[in-house]
This record gives sequence, C-alpha cells and structure tokens, in this order.
Amino acid sequence: MGISGSDPSGLTLGEASEREALRRIFPRLPESSATLVGPGDDAAVLAAPDGRFVVTTDMMVHGPDFRLAWSGPVDLGWKAAATNLSDVAAMGAVPTALVVAIAAPPETTVEWLEGVADGFRLACETLAPGCGVVGGDLSVSATLTFAVTAFGDLEGRAPVLRSGARPGDVVAVSGALGQAASGLRHLFAEAVDATGEPDPERFAGVAAAHPESVGAQLRPTPPIADGPLAALAGATAMLDLSDGLALDARRVAEASGVAVDLDSSALGPDARTALTGGEDHGLFAAFPAGTSLPGGFRAVGTVREGTGLLVDGVPFDERGGWDPYLEWDGGSG
Amino acid sequence: MGISGSDPSGLTLGEASEREALRRIFPRLPESSATLVGPGDDAAVLAAPDGRFVVTTDMMVHGPDFRLAWSGPVDLGWKAAATNLSDVAAMGAVPTALVVAIAAPPETTVEWLEGVADGFRLACETLAPGCGVVGGDLSVSATLTFAVTAFGDLEGRAPVLRSGARPGDVVAVSGALGQAASGLRHLFAEAVDATGEPDPERFAGVAAAHPESVGAQLRPTPPIADGPLAALAGATAMLDLSDGLALDARRVAEASGVAVDLDSSALGPDARTALTGGEDHGLFAAFPAGTSLPGGFRAVGTVREGTGLLVDGVPFDERGGWDPYLEWDGGSG
Repeated sequence: MGISGSDPSGLTLGEASEREALRRIFPRLPESSATLVGPGDDAAVLAAPDGRFVVTTDMMVHGPDFRLAWSGPVDLGWKAAATNLSDVAAMGAVPTALVVAIAAPPETTVEWLEGVADGFRLACETLAPGCGVVGGDLSVSATLTFAVTAFGDLEGRAPVLRSGARPGDVVAVSGALGQAASGLRHLFAEAVDATGEPDPERFAGVAAAHPESVGAQLRPTPPIADGPLAALAGATAMLDLSDGLALDARRVAEASGVAVDLDSSALGPDARTALTGGEDHGLFAAFPAGTSLPGGFRAVGTVREGTGLLVDGVPFDERGGWDPYLEWDGGSG
Repeated sequence: MGISGSDPSGLTLGEASEREALRRIFPRLPESSATLVGPGDDAAVLAAPDGRFVVTTDMMVHGPDFRLAWSGPVDLGWKAAATNLSDVAAMGAVPTALVVAIAAPPETTVEWLEGVADGFRLACETLAPGCGVVGGDLSVSATLTFAVTAFGDLEGRAPVLRSGARPGDVVAVSGALGQAASGLRHLFAEAVDATGEPDPERFAGVAAAHPESVGAQLRPTPPIADGPLAALAGATAMLDLSDGLALDARRVAEASGVAVDLDSSALGPDARTALTGGEDHGLFAAFPAGTSLPGGFRAVGTVREGTGLLVDGVPFDERGGWDPYLEWDGGSG
C-alpha cells in the first residue's frame, strides 16, 4: 500500500532523474486527438477548431482531498481526470486534453506513478474518448499533490453559464446524488483505526460492503457526454455538482437572479444526503419548460421568480457541501 | 516575514472561506485580453483566433523550488508567472492567459495571498501586457505549492520547436546567462544561519550586496517579446533556458540531430557559470546564417554536423542544470 508501491525495492523518484521517470510514465498516458505538438517541447500546441477553448484547473492534495490509506494510484489518476473533465462538460464542451502536474515525496516509486498514469488513461478512455494528456510537470514535495488543467471544445456552440436560468425553466440533474458523500461517510466511520486515522486494513471490507458509494467517492464517473447534449438541447444554465446539490443549485439561483425550487420526492430515498453531500460530479442544468431532457437528465424541480433555494416551496438554508479551509482536520493517512 | 504576513492578526485561510479569500484576491489579478468567459463559472473560455493554442504547465514547491526565508509573496507570484510565460515565448507564441492553482498551509494569511496576486499582476504587466489570470483553484496543504498553466497565441505562425536546428545555423541567446545561478549561490552561501538553514535576517544584506544576481534568481525577467520576434525572424529551433545553457543546448542538439558548438568568449566573464547555471529563463535559438538577430539576441555559437555539445570545438560533457529529484536536500526555510 501507499506510495512505495507493491515492490519496495522499486526505483523511487528520489533515485530516478525526472527524465527517466517521465520516460516510463508518458507511454501509459492517453493521447489527445487535438494534439498538434505533443510532449517534448517547452509547450504543447492544441487545436481549437472554432477559435475558442474552454479551460479549468483543479488541485487534489493529500489530506484534505484524499487519503493514501483508501485511494490507490489508479484511483487518484482517475479522480483527478474525472473531476476536471466534469468542469469542462458543465460548460457544454467536449473535453479535448489535460495537462498534469504532480508533486510527490522522494520515496514515491516510479511504479506507483505508472499506476497514476494508468488511472488518467482509463478515465479518459471511459469518460471522454479522444481526450488525452498533452503535457505535464513532475516535482518533489513533502505533500503529494496533483494539479490538473483541462481543455474543451465548444464545437461552435455558446458556453452554458450559471447565469442563464429563467423563471419557468425545469431544473434537472444527471448522475447519482449523494453517493460520493455516503461513501466518504462509510470510510470515515468504518475504515479507520481506533484513533480515527484512515486504515488500509479495514478499507477492503468497507469497500466490499458498499461498492457503489465507495466507488462513487474514489472513482467518480461523471456523465461527461451529457454536458454537450444539454447544450444542444438548449440548456439555459449548467454546473458541475461538486459541493452538494443545495449549495450548487443556490449558486445557479444567485448567478441567474432567480429562485430554484427542488422537489424532494425527486431526490431519491435520502433527500438530505442528496442535497448536502459533495463530490457528486454530476451535472445540474436548467432547461426551458417542455424540453425533452437529453441523456441521463431527470427533472428535480423548477425555476421561479425570487432568490435562493427552496425545497418543496420552503426556503432551504442548510449550507451543505465541503470547504476544505473550514473543514480540514489536518489528519494524515 | 513568511506566510503569516506583516499583520499577524490578519485573516488566515484556515479562518476564511474559499469564496471570501477569492473575493479579496481576484480583483488584484491581471485581466486577459483573450477572455471570453472569465472567473465565476466551472471553466473559463478563451479566444484562440488562429484555431490553435499553446499550453504549458509548471509547479513551484516550497523547499526544492523556493524558500520563504528569501522570497516574499510578490516574488513568488512574479516568478511563477515569469517561468511559465517564458515557456510560451519559447514556442514563438504571445502569452495570452494563465490559470493558477495554489495550495497553502491553513495559517497563510489572505493578505499574504494578495501579495502573490500582486506578483502575478506585476509580472504580466511588465513582461507580457494583455496576458492575465482567467481562473484558478485555492486549496489547503501542509506544503506551499503553486501550479501555473500558461497559454499562448501563435498568431498564425508555425511553432518553433527544439528539433529544427540545421548545420550552418547561428545559435543565439537572449537574456542574462548565469545570473540566477550566481544569485542562488550567494543565497545558499551567505543568507543562511550557522546550521546552513535559509535565514531571513541575513537575506537583506545579501540582496543589497548582489542586487542583480539575487534579483535574477527571485524575480526573473525573461525576454518574453523576443520569442515571437525570433519566430518572425525565421528561428529554426528555440527553447527556454531553464536548466543551464549546456544542458539546454544539448537538448536542441539531440532533438535536431546536430551538434551545437558554443564560443566561450561570447559567454561573458564567467563562462562556466553561464554554461551550467540553471533558471536563467532566457531564450536559446538557432537562426539561418546571415539572419539579422532580432530583439536582445546575440550570437553564441554555431550548429555543426555531428552530435552533442561542443565548447570552442571541444566536446563538453558537464551536466550542469538542476534536477530536483537528484539535488533536493530536503531542507526547510
């Protein structure tokens, strides 16, 4: 377990040159069909056929964002890719490429980093075929850190912003609600040792007992293709559900100058977790009334005149979501 | 000194919400003239007028890449911007935008991060007017880490790669050689305490005694405009001098399948430091013989049939440059 890999005699970053490490990692990374100039120069050159490109960046830091006791290298590469791809999709764009910067402790093995590369490849192949890694950076750090920047192609469409929802619109979600938060709750309650620290020994049993929710937490599968489909169907507003449906729906309400009224009966058996659980990485979108909802979208409420978030017509002020500054406990594991 | 800022009673990241911190930081960041959709949505949308864009990414990690005893927040923002802008320029492109991810310890003050934002703004205004920050991410981490991704516009030109140098070309550099390494040498020799740890008290005297070299190390001023000028002048190969002239010239030789022969008399009074010192962030380029060298470029040698690097016609095999995996000593400060 951990960054030393399965073969403790394996070559570490502290021993390998950056060039040697990259030589082993790059062949495992997915290729981008937008590449005009790939890795090996000071910068890559990518195609932006309609004269614009979408860009988003996100960091994952050991401690607040993941624990090595629970996430293997393939999980981490997968999740770092998936969460960024989801932000691109939420603009209505098709993901085209990623650049990946990784800072890792010197004792990290190159074999472990190959697993991370495999995670990026599997996530791109599964979630966004044609999207690949076109560049990166490898550094040494006391704290394992991933910084991913993702690009997308709007294919001539207008980007779908948070600010376009109008009274009368239907609001809809694509992707599971609350599963990732439920998985995290299982991990923090059951996959820890007597002192509350993440425990790799107990992890296996918890993952086997709750495969769906723990899987949603460790290897999210955002409905990437539904982003462009929503744009084509005329979505008036859209965002990635990263901080919980309540907080994210409130963001759309605020940016659009409207109220969003959610129907709790559409939120599944555990509406509270669906509302307040973070890291779903599904899509939340508003569509003109009467729109035939595309892909995996299902209606969960309506847009009204007013402000803020309502649930079943009643103001809902619980915060929900995840703010690492307020909630990180500084723990290790 | 340090991430607690000048006002130790100031609001820290551990106390502020991410939203509150971003609200204070964003107004200080430079705006990009390529912005179509700026911060506030899941992703930004940027113009790519010729249907392509250049992209590069680079991390700066406390310890191997900088010391808080020597670098203030404005220095760090400046250097994180400058080093990425230089990679864009080395393709022959005009920098258009940056996205910036920062992970910082919870005790970091928002005031200190405002200084980082000021550094990004000053660097962009000075080195690449029109280039700005279009998005970012703010995380908490035990290790202060900057991850910057930079974009550029080729304005219809072909990118200048490392692989195009041909026998008979002149090789030239723009920007100072060896200054940044000389500054780092002064810092590690003189701005440390009795145990060899970086010492903010001694730093001021060292910076005053060696302003040019310490300045080149802490706030590099790469000749960004010379990148596009080199492309317009017909440069056959180009790269950013990040790892020392010897190592970087060897990279061009290898990628181009030629030998590069440098003239030591063109390398200034300390040719050895010019050859082996890293972090110059000048430009190294090859031009067809007889080219009128543009901007700040000056000839330093020629391209020949053969392989590898020669100095005054003699093979030069010293490694030079900086590989954080091999050379980081794990020190703090």
